[in-house]
Amino acid sequence: MKVISHYSETESKQFDGEVVKGVNGRVVIGQKDNALNFCMRIFTIAPEGYTPRHSHAWEHEILVHSGSGQVWQDGKWVDVRPGAVIFVPGNEEHQLRNSSAADFVFACVIPKGAPEL
Amino acid sequence: MKVISHYSETESKQFDGEVVKGVNGRVVIGQKDNALNFCMRIFTIAPEGYTPRHSHAWEHEILVHSGSGQVWQDGKWVDVRPGAVIFVPGNEEHQLRNSSAADFVFACVIPKGAPEL
Repeated sequence: MKVISHYSETESKQFDGEVVKGVNGRVVIGQKDNALNFCMRIFTIAPEGYTPRHSHAWEHEILVHSGSGQVWQDGKWVDVRPGAVIFVPGNEEHQLRNSSAADFVFACVIPKGAPEL
Repeated sequence: MKVISHYSETESKQFDGEVVKGVNGRVVIGQKDNALNFCMRIFTIAPEGYTPRHSHAWEHEILVHSGSGQVWQDGKWVDVRPGAVIFVPGNEEHQLRNSSAADFVFACVIPKGAPEL
């Protein structure tokens, strides 16, 4: 069993570019743990930050952990808060962004075979 | 895409018995959503409550969402708090319990084929 006291203790990767801003991501459970069926990542989006608007073959299962943000659902922004759950089926366009002055944090689980980060 | 404003809005099932106490569980993303690779459940353990101490073939990927609790790891209790991450490989003994006066809430993801709840 692996217990991480807090996700922030783990190595992270920063994403900033043309289509992504202020996103910090980390694999907390993945292939290196011999977790072969699915992978848990934790993302932190800084104020005014956003993930890319894109789609891909694999699904996302998301739990909002802290902060306030929005998810792009069928052409509109929908508010989400801690305790919100989002299921993004494969090949569906999606994007998340921070809508507050604090960090927006969520877990995002993906199936094996998808790029972990 | 499915967006649940807060997990508490979804149907839940109460578990109380000889080996489990004060546990409320819900499938927030599962087979009924056509999520065929893995399933997200949210569990709420009431004060003084606990899950069964058991093992099974499938793994758990857990994120502590709120409250304070403990996980049984290799023969001892380990404190966990919001933001803690636990990976329980298949066939490893595990148990979670509340160690506070407030609800202890965590997400627990399992692979397809395992019983959803």
